[in-house]
Amino acid sequence: MERTCLAIILAAGESTRMKSSVSKVLHPVAGRPMIAHVVDALASASISDVALVVGRDADAVSAAAQKAGVTVASFLQKERLGTGHAVLAAREAIARGYDDILVVFGDTPLVTAEPLKAAREGLAEGNDVVVIGFEAADPTGYGRLIIEDGALVAIREHRDASEAERRITYCNGGLMAINGRTALDLLGRIGNANVKGEYYLTDLVEIVRTIGGRAVAVEAPEEELTGCNTRAELAYIERLWQQRRRYELMLSGVSMIAPETVFLSWDTELSQDVLVEPNVVFGPGVSVESGAIIHAFSHLEGAFVRAGATVGPFARLRPGAELGPNSKVGNFCEVKKAEIGAGAKVNHLTYIGDAFVGAGSNIGAGTITCNYDGVNKHVTRIGENAFVGSNSSLVAPVAIGDGALVASGSVITEDVPADAVAFGRARQDIKPGRARILRERYEAEKAAKKKAKAAE
Amino acid sequence: MERTCLAIILAAGESTRMKSSVSKVLHPVAGRPMIAHVVDALASASISDVALVVGRDADAVSAAAQKAGVTVASFLQKERLGTGHAVLAAREAIARGYDDILVVFGDTPLVTAEPLKAAREGLAEGNDVVVIGFEAADPTGYGRLIIEDGALVAIREHRDASEAERRITYCNGGLMAINGRTALDLLGRIGNANVKGEYYLTDLVEIVRTIGGRAVAVEAPEEELTGCNTRAELAYIERLWQQRRRYELMLSGVSMIAPETVFLSWDTELSQDVLVEPNVVFGPGVSVESGAIIHAFSHLEGAFVRAGATVGPFARLRPGAELGPNSKVGNFCEVKKAEIGAGAKVNHLTYIGDAFVGAGSNIGAGTITCNYDGVNKHVTRIGENAFVGSNSSLVAPVAIGDGALVASGSVITEDVPADAVAFGRARQDIKPGRARILRERYEAEKAAKKKAKAAE
Amino acid sequence: MERTCLAIILAAGESTRMKSSVSKVLHPVAGRPMIAHVVDALASASISDVALVVGRDADAVSAAAQKAGVTVASFLQKERLGTGHAVLAAREAIARGYDDILVVFGDTPLVTAEPLKAAREGLAEGNDVVVIGFEAADPTGYGRLIIEDGALVAIREHRDASEAERRITYCNGGLMAINGRTALDLLGRIGNANVKGEYYLTDLVEIVRTIGGRAVAVEAPEEELTGCNTRAELAYIERLWQQRRRYELMLSGVSMIAPETVFLSWDTELSQDVLVEPNVVFGPGVSVESGAIIHAFSHLEGAFVRAGATVGPFARLRPGAELGPNSKVGNFCEVKKAEIGAGAKVNHLTYIGDAFVGAGSNIGAGTITCNYDGVNKHVTRIGENAFVGSNSSLVAPVAIGDGALVASGSVITEDVPADAVAFGRARQDIKPGRARILRERYEAEKAAKKKAKAAE
Repeated sequence: MERTCLAIILAAGESTRMKSSVSKVLHPVAGRPMIAHVVDALASASISDVALVVGRDADAVSAAAQKAGVTVASFLQKERLGTGHAVLAAREAIARGYDDILVVFGDTPLVTAEPLKAAREGLAEGNDVVVIGFEAADPTGYGRLIIEDGALVAIREHRDASEAERRITYCNGGLMAINGRTALDLLGRIGNANVKGEYYLTDLVEIVRTIGGRAVAVEAPEEELTGCNTRAELAYIERLWQQRRRYELMLSGVSMIAPETVFLSWDTELSQDVLVEPNVVFGPGVSVESGAIIHAFSHLEGAFVRAGATVGPFARLRPGAELGPNSKVGNFCEVKKAEIGAGAKVNHLTYIGDAFVGAGSNIGAGTITCNYDGVNKHVTRIGENAFVGSNSSLVAPVAIGDGALVASGSVITEDVPADAVAFGRARQDIKPGRARILRERYEAEKAAKKKAKAAE
Repeated sequence: MERTCLAIILAAGESTRMKSSVSKVLHPVAGRPMIAHVVDALASASISDVALVVGRDADAVSAAAQKAGVTVASFLQKERLGTGHAVLAAREAIARGYDDILVVFGDTPLVTAEPLKAAREGLAEGNDVVVIGFEAADPTGYGRLIIEDGALVAIREHRDASEAERRITYCNGGLMAINGRTALDLLGRIGNANVKGEYYLTDLVEIVRTIGGRAVAVEAPEEELTGCNTRAELAYIERLWQQRRRYELMLSGVSMIAPETVFLSWDTELSQDVLVEPNVVFGPGVSVESGAIIHAFSHLEGAFVRAGATVGPFARLRPGAELGPNSKVGNFCEVKKAEIGAGAKVNHLTYIGDAFVGAGSNIGAGTITCNYDGVNKHVTRIGENAFVGSNSSLVAPVAIGDGALVASGSVITEDVPADAVAFGRARQDIKPGRARILRERYEAEKAAKKKAKAAE
Repeated sequence: MERTCLAIILAAGESTRMKSSVSKVLHPVAGRPMIAHVVDALASASISDVALVVGRDADAVSAAAQKAGVTVASFLQKERLGTGHAVLAAREAIARGYDDILVVFGDTPLVTAEPLKAAREGLAEGNDVVVIGFEAADPTGYGRLIIEDGALVAIREHRDASEAERRITYCNGGLMAINGRTALDLLGRIGNANVKGEYYLTDLVEIVRTIGGRAVAVEAPEEELTGCNTRAELAYIERLWQQRRRYELMLSGVSMIAPETVFLSWDTELSQDVLVEPNVVFGPGVSVESGAIIHAFSHLEGAFVRAGATVGPFARLRPGAELGPNSKVGNFCEVKKAEIGAGAKVNHLTYIGDAFVGAGSNIGAGTITCNYDGVNKHVTRIGENAFVGSNSSLVAPVAIGDGALVASGSVITEDVPADAVAFGRARQDIKPGRARILRERYEAEKAAKKKAKAAE
């Protein structure tokens, strides 16, 4: 069987309850827009034709939904007259003729391929409509799925349900597969003779039954169908996403002392035997090899951490940070667009930006690569087994040779040859007994200030 | 109806189980004493006359309960003979004659105006006593409210309750409204003929019934009545407070990726479209305008962050920090009593204290405003569009003019005119081949030390 | 009664599902190997003879199980043929003759002395086998304890249980006490006529019954019997451990604003009236005295914090840090192997390593003790009431006398006498109008670069 499929993503909502300057489907989950998660789920279910129904922030939403290997065409829903109406915004795409039409929402980013495939299988088995449902922990407020002899005969809204029906916990998740060959006909039969005067996609269930067809339901985990209407729900979705991914990573051999304090991005890659301590944030683009330790209070983004390296506590790796095997970036250190060689150490209060640090080199506490002149960024190159004394300033562009030594507290503005020692600091001068005098003067100033203030 | 009301706060407890050097009502929730939350709830219920019954740490408790617009008079409870006795410590205040007497506790800081108003309405409807109750998730240990024909006929302590009564989940929250015109008479009827020999306020329910009056109960959410006897309960109350406030903020349009890791103060103000990343602590006095981003691992206190500014990760804003629109304070930066102008950047490892940074200026990594001479604090003024090279020390009092440039690694002790370049660093000196020699010497020292140690 | 006891710890598992390069019993909980927690529980139950059955990583596991006052002998289980077989790996130890044999697991680190004692009491009362059970919140999958007239007559595996038996929530925790005088005989009777062909220790219950003996069960909290097969379960165990210890500390008078964000080690000592703010990590070896405050985002390890001292936010104390009474270590500061005197302040962006800071001294922002020359570590000694100006480098070995003053931005390479002022910085030089020229040059460079890039 190679049935064709068009997925329609409804993403035209006003997002009013988000109280946001942008459409809710643009809000990120795990570091990328919700809508991108939905497209990903479609792609992982081998669906490559997508009709995106947009409204608010149409261009931005369309842009966020693009994905290599998936054709995403956008359709503007001009009026908001219900889900049945929204789907028909993509009438032109539906009319191209598909075996399966799959309707999903832009704000359910936790959905996975499994229920989507199950819904399509339902169509392949000859059903006209397949609703994706879920067993609700608390069904209050949801539409109940009324099943008779294996067929879905109705979706009963909570307010219309009898006491007996309210005890049903199998609920409507909203996602639906429709026979693509009759979809336009079916959708055209949806009326708006209801209180709100809207066209409801769920009406299809009873419509299909009226004309002698058959609807069924397939089940998905409740979590996967969680939708987003408020920022509180957004946070809840983020939480579910994080829990799911942390759990997968732990089962694959990653240790997390307190998984609930580790925040992952959609593309975070952690190998077996990586240890992540409490309170670590992974922004997008991070890959960590086996045996590396990410200590507490670290923040990584766009960084590659090789085997056996250690990061933190209190380290920040920014895009372009590449830590070599067994290297170390310690507390209150920032590394940006820089390679740290194998076994090299950047342990304390240091900024390494636009730089190369050779294998085995040691960068003293408080060292700063002065990479910016206010207009341009410049590169610092440090050789292998060099030692940069604490609190030094390396004014780029500058190079420190292999085995070179920079004296503590130096400002280095010229290249240091291999094996040379470089000084760049003033001679010390001592004024004996002077501190007592200064203190007396300072105390007098303080007293004078106080007096002045009191006089105001 | 404009009924008069006296609220009596019972705050005389010994707090023994807190194992604390101070009374429990002084312990903070959301950054201020529990007792202040209670006074706030009274004020928001339009109650302005308060009698505070104090015992341990009487002066400190009285001080913590002061609030503009509320008259708080303290009454010392010398002996601790039960809640009925405690209320009578405020006999003098009650005797002034109020329509309503409202008894609340100093250790239930989550109470809101709603149940207080509801209890007073109960009095206005002609009841003599109104008890504030709650539906307990687990009623074990609580006094059950026995309701007959809408009247509260008894509060049955858990140990005295029959099996049937124990199935009641409507429980006594302790807070109570009493007809102010008969309160002294009613309170005087409470006896102490019980095991502990104490006077229990709850006895009022049956006393009122005996003399032909009527008691009723009004319901409050269980959460609002949570009391505090141990530090574990204090942490639980803090947690409930934080959850409540985070939820409100999210519904108002604030994004929190991991709300459970964001800690707010009682007065934290976050506007719509503020994004708060995981692990952020807001101390008192923080206000953040729309579009600002508070990155992970940031700590703010007494700070004003204007629209579009970004903070952190790993930033600390201390009292008096004012960040201009679209300005940026980045990792391992501390800002104290300083204005950062519009679009200015303080990105890395920097301390800005007692300073003004002009719009568009860029402060290089590792810059320190040396604002303290050991006795007095001095001011640093940086103009607009200035560039302070990395690792510089600005020794206050000092001024850097508009458009000026400070060379990296400089110590600046004198004012720098606008558009000038200032250097304050030593010339670099290179000793070729010297590093190898030094290393050999250091290695020999190391070996000698080892030998000496082994010989010990 | 002084009955002798041998505890047998089963720790030979392959830990396959951990996907780890080391045996699961070596994975840490609260900062030390799981197996060490188990040995500790035995010791606290006054058991000093331990037979450790090892397999994978035998040497490392044996090493991790050592404890003063406990004799731990290791026995290699060469084949893995079930728990009954594993216990017999210690046949030689059992044969020495003990009153009680207690079988525990290397991967249940939350067990405490109580159930171990209860199990031994069961033997003392004349029972032949005592199984430690628990009331399961969800018994699915666990072996049910079938109790008749107070005796344990069978352990029914979930798959073999009848519907009625599945409703039993009293389950087998796996730990077991066996009459030491008959243990070898009993263990020898265990057969392997089952699907997997393994020898199951749980068979003892029915074996004992067959030969006219008696088995009973004693109950432990489910939490204590939590075992570890995956990293997700490891994280769960860590969580339970942390919750237990935080709760104990709070009840003892320690305040935690957000206990769920405070991570303790097995040996963390916090006194009454210590305040721990959110997001604090305690590594091993930390002791904090009364009245100290550990602010948010702090990381402590091997450190001693005396009464009234304050740490953080964003502070890191490493091994050997000793903070005197009322001293202060502030944001982005690292202290390692150093004493900070009473009332001394190390407030901002500072590294203090291998140093002594005298009472009342103030170390300015950005100060670095340059304690390493690339080969050896050297000591910095700062006297009392000294003031080290901001951004100074103290190049060790070096001493700053009492009351001395180091000018901001100085590099100090020679000792500073008491009450002296030391300067070690270059004179400032100003080039008027030069900044404009430089900027123009930089802008031109930028444009040229852009052009070059575009031409590529």
